[in-house]
Amino acid sequence: MAVYTEVSGEDLEEFIAQYDIGHVVSFKGIAEGVENSNYLLQTDRGNYILTLYEKRVAPADLPFFLGLMDHLAAKGFTCPTPVHGRDGAALRELCGRPAAIVSFLQGVCARRITPAQCAALGEAMATMHLAGQGFARKRANDLSLMGWRRLFEATRARADEIAKGLAAEIEDELGILAKSWPENLPAGVIHADLFPDNVFFLGEALSGVIDFYFACNDFFAYDLAICLNAWCFEPDASFNATKARQMFASYGAVRKLEDDELAALPVLARGAALRFLLTRLYDWLNHPEGALVRRKDPKEYLTRLRFHRRATGPGAYGLA
Amino acid sequence: MAVYTEVSGEDLEEFIAQYDIGHVVSFKGIAEGVENSNYLLQTDRGNYILTLYEKRVAPADLPFFLGLMDHLAAKGFTCPTPVHGRDGAALRELCGRPAAIVSFLQGVCARRITPAQCAALGEAMATMHLAGQGFARKRANDLSLMGWRRLFEATRARADEIAKGLAAEIEDELGILAKSWPENLPAGVIHADLFPDNVFFLGEALSGVIDFYFACNDFFAYDLAICLNAWCFEPDASFNATKARQMFASYGAVRKLEDDELAALPVLARGAALRFLLTRLYDWLNHPEGALVRRKDPKEYLTRLRFHRRATGPGAYGLA
Repeated sequence: MAVYTEVSGEDLEEFIAQYDIGHVVSFKGIAEGVENSNYLLQTDRGNYILTLYEKRVAPADLPFFLGLMDHLAAKGFTCPTPVHGRDGAALRELCGRPAAIVSFLQGVCARRITPAQCAALGEAMATMHLAGQGFARKRANDLSLMGWRRLFEATRARADEIAKGLAAEIEDELGILAKSWPENLPAGVIHADLFPDNVFFLGEALSGVIDFYFACNDFFAYDLAICLNAWCFEPDASFNATKARQMFASYGAVRKLEDDELAALPVLARGAALRFLLTRLYDWLNHPEGALVRRKDPKEYLTRLRFHRRATGPGAYGLA
Repeated sequence: MAVYTEVSGEDLEEFIAQYDIGHVVSFKGIAEGVENSNYLLQTDRGNYILTLYEKRVAPADLPFFLGLMDHLAAKGFTCPTPVHGRDGAALRELCGRPAAIVSFLQGVCARRITPAQCAALGEAMATMHLAGQGFARKRANDLSLMGWRRLFEATRARADEIAKGLAAEIEDELGILAKSWPENLPAGVIHADLFPDNVFFLGEALSGVIDFYFACNDFFAYDLAICLNAWCFEPDASFNATKARQMFASYGAVRKLEDDELAALPVLARGAALRFLLTRLYDWLNHPEGALVRRKDPKEYLTRLRFHRRATGPGAYGLA
């Protein structure tokens, strides 16, 4: 949950006057998106989300993120669409932060994930990967090998507070991934944070994808590897191969997966698990006093990392 | 801000099935109400607020609070109206908490308060006081003299961490208020927490009042004394007599204030300042690790208490 910056009704009125979206009838801080301050804004014309970008989002990246949402929406992919002001700009400033208004997406996040939802996710992800082609801007994935190393350096001294031997285990893993990370897989724009929190459903149907603030250029299969981690493990840490199979089958029906993408899955899934282990570890150790965000347990991703380490091929996920 | 209990889409679907309010199209935790978990629920029929009552609200009080909203709404006062399920009940359970759905009120909270908004508040407050007459349930104000003493006992040992000599100052004040607190003023149902966060405006017009979870039977003038504290001080701690005059004039146009109510204002305002000083002090000293609520500074109300202590009559507020 997150409302880091409080926007007064008066600030809002001034801000809204730059847009052609009608008059404010309601304005509520919402518990959505851990990185930014988000408000649900209702006007006499409809519902919108107002986002103030907090310090974790680099302002230089915002044209990529907003441009991507514009691009994907123009291709018919259901995601929030930046609302452009009377001056044509989607990105401006509010309360000293970069800020943007995007369209509101209906839908509710899934908590108890079903195989059918994993299938819907696979289809949407492939559709998004294809729709991203032709998007002119580029953004490197700053949470890949180099970024993991940087996060590790920032956490290694205290990592063993979370689990005995964790620093050594991450060090070892980083070395292996540096040597085995693939180099030539099909790549394009990926979401890179496609967790259940960021996917909306209306009944069984997927109604949209939100929160593109980790999107970047990377291997398509890495997005799938993130989703294997985020959608296919049960609360008891067991892996649900049915969910994985449904996700991959639906994905493959839209964008055919190549053999080398499938073969790389264990190493990509290890990387994805390490990425979330490291960011959670960092957040756990650097939780500011009075922060309005609940810390997520890093150990959950340590368990998943160990699972992937035992995988020798896509068969480990029920995908062979 | 507050979402203490996370409600999954699946829990929600089951819960909603008990009501005749259509199908869920959106569901977002909102940063509204410090005491409870609040969600903005959108269905194909309209907008609603789902509240889960957390530990600070006594379940035994809920029939009073919900019944009062029903009563006031039936009298035409704009406040959230409890939505009754197919079984007729407005109060039920969700995720182990008492929970209720209420109607959604349009409007935005004011931050930079204007005298016109204070006038609108005064009129609404008097209307609410009159509308509350005839409400059959009763609830004592558990944050009056006895409650302040209890809060003081729970905080006195550490009160001086906030301001040197604070414990002695509160002790002294409690003694004076116990002796001088009025006994026979016009009374009825009051809101008792009519802060700007709980009052919505659409433009200059007051569009509704929310958060009746401190409502109780007490002196009408005590509600006004709370609002003197909450609406009429500027950020620099100076008292704005124009705002007070507008508030009282509008109030008086709806429900005539008696001379003894006006005469009691300084002592009532001292009590109100002490009440918020004590609850803020308690919250400051008992801020749980990982709490998702920003602490409010108790010292703000110490300053106001000292202001009221110097007041000898309504003239001190520009009201003579």
